[in-house]
Amino acid sequence: MRILVTGAAGMIGRKLVARLARDGEVAGKPIAALDLHDIVAADLVSIADAETSVFVGDIASPDTVDMLVSRRPDVIFHLAGVVSGEAEANFDLGYRVNLDGTRMLFDAIRLADYRPRVVFTSSIAVFGAPFPDVIPDDFHPTPMTSYGTQKLIGEALLSDYTRRGFMDGIGIRLPTICVRPGKPNKAASGFFSGIIREPLNGQEAILPVPRSVVHTHASPRSAVGFLIRAAGIDGDLVGPRRNLNMPGVGVTVGEQIEALERVAGSNVVSLIREAPDEAVWSIVRNWPTRFEARRARELGFEAETSFDEIVKVYVEEELA
Amino acid sequence: MRILVTGAAGMIGRKLVARLARDGEVAGKPIAALDLHDIVAADLVSIADAETSVFVGDIASPDTVDMLVSRRPDVIFHLAGVVSGEAEANFDLGYRVNLDGTRMLFDAIRLADYRPRVVFTSSIAVFGAPFPDVIPDDFHPTPMTSYGTQKLIGEALLSDYTRRGFMDGIGIRLPTICVRPGKPNKAASGFFSGIIREPLNGQEAILPVPRSVVHTHASPRSAVGFLIRAAGIDGDLVGPRRNLNMPGVGVTVGEQIEALERVAGSNVVSLIREAPDEAVWSIVRNWPTRFEARRARELGFEAETSFDEIVKVYVEEELA
Repeated sequence: MRILVTGAAGMIGRKLVARLARDGEVAGKPIAALDLHDIVAADLVSIADAETSVFVGDIASPDTVDMLVSRRPDVIFHLAGVVSGEAEANFDLGYRVNLDGTRMLFDAIRLADYRPRVVFTSSIAVFGAPFPDVIPDDFHPTPMTSYGTQKLIGEALLSDYTRRGFMDGIGIRLPTICVRPGKPNKAASGFFSGIIREPLNGQEAILPVPRSVVHTHASPRSAVGFLIRAAGIDGDLVGPRRNLNMPGVGVTVGEQIEALERVAGSNVVSLIREAPDEAVWSIVRNWPTRFEARRARELGFEAETSFDEIVKVYVEEELA
Repeated sequence: MRILVTGAAGMIGRKLVARLARDGEVAGKPIAALDLHDIVAADLVSIADAETSVFVGDIASPDTVDMLVSRRPDVIFHLAGVVSGEAEANFDLGYRVNLDGTRMLFDAIRLADYRPRVVFTSSIAVFGAPFPDVIPDDFHPTPMTSYGTQKLIGEALLSDYTRRGFMDGIGIRLPTICVRPGKPNKAASGFFSGIIREPLNGQEAILPVPRSVVHTHASPRSAVGFLIRAAGIDGDLVGPRRNLNMPGVGVTVGEQIEALERVAGSNVVSLIREAPDEAVWSIVRNWPTRFEARRARELGFEAETSFDEIVKVYVEEELA
């Protein structure tokens, strides 16, 4: 099996590559070659008996995607993309990378005339308020950001290209990934990770929204698990509706904090400082809360079942 | 008001232009200029005190759309597109015209930095089976054709470009337009019009599906009415969800035939010959049946209330 990972230098990309290197196989078949692509150089990994290559370039370039696809990867993890805040701030960049880049990749596959499995990371950002208490699998997508719009268009292309037999696509709508490792960022969602990560690292964290806010989370480890499951799943089992809401843990911010206390103690939790920020809350208020994700669960996609587990994954992976 | 109509030489386009010429105004304001565009020359019309122009060219060309938009039309009716069967048969053409053409037009508007009303004809082809008995306004779109995929992407762009203030878009999802004037075509949906039109013209018509098949129809006159209403509606009334399911008459094929008999008599109806065609039925079986269209009705979009009226519209407009 030849595997291609786009966006391989990103947070999820790096963890996926580490998992692939550890497993040495995908969908029960050994990895013979692993191609890593990003706009910056991804870290090279070694896999026994496998050739690994790192490519640096612009995903929204026909030359780049043609070259990557000409190597005929059997499984393509298409993670490359501009994040939500950047796509909103820079209209042209977001459409170029998230829409044109995805379409160019899919078209290169179409014209290469073979039928690889393509795993596309979509997002719950395809949904827009107002929401029911629990969002069903067939909830209608009405994105409220350019990022969500671009992901929705990628999903639509994936479905049509799959229906026409050009590729064998699976789109996975990721919930918020928590706890993100690394430094705080300026994303409006940053505090969901920050209130766990900073206290565990002995630093103060700001909580800008009420403790009653509900949101759905999965760990980076689960996100990688979703990708691996999507790479191996039988497309006939999934049927024609190829874009799936991933499962996660739906909790209030208060419940996040209680989980942190159970895992790490009250001293850690005391580092969280409440500082209501109406600007942040006005954004977060329009975000999805809980997801049913019944189809994904039935298809074997697994997330944590409590926020305690999510905290523990961070401790194990980042602080061990 | 300067008005631009793309796809002005098509069936709906011609009827829209005739209505504009008759009204001499849109949204209560007189038409000062009317620009008609299509891949073939649309018929020139004359409107008192208005300049009318005909442009021939490819909508999926930046030069064409830049030229059309540089004239700064206040209202743009974007009807241009490749039809469903053609988009399925010719992948490249469908994506080029229906996706690239629409995106180029929207981008030309964005870069022209003004905020015209854009009325985009989408389609119920954005929906895919299975369906509930009555399809609600917030039913999730899962197109089962490339045409439906391209329309869904156009809708997503329209919403995002409107949200960002680049234009003031309204997308209208048309039901099947019936009775289509003219010659029979090879579209799988052709019989819905054919079983009314051919008998009214003294010709035999083939009915390839069972009389129990349910489908939603609106007349070409109603389709034009939807466009005019969409041109004039207050965007704030519509809110952020800019793509609307249009109303129509949901009837069985048997009820269509009963309406024809009431309007035109049993001799006319006797020209319908049942000749079951499994290939046609297998397509039609996956098509939407009835629509709630509550939002559109509340927003003043009006269709016929019985299939008798739809038959009478055809008689008045085409046979008078």
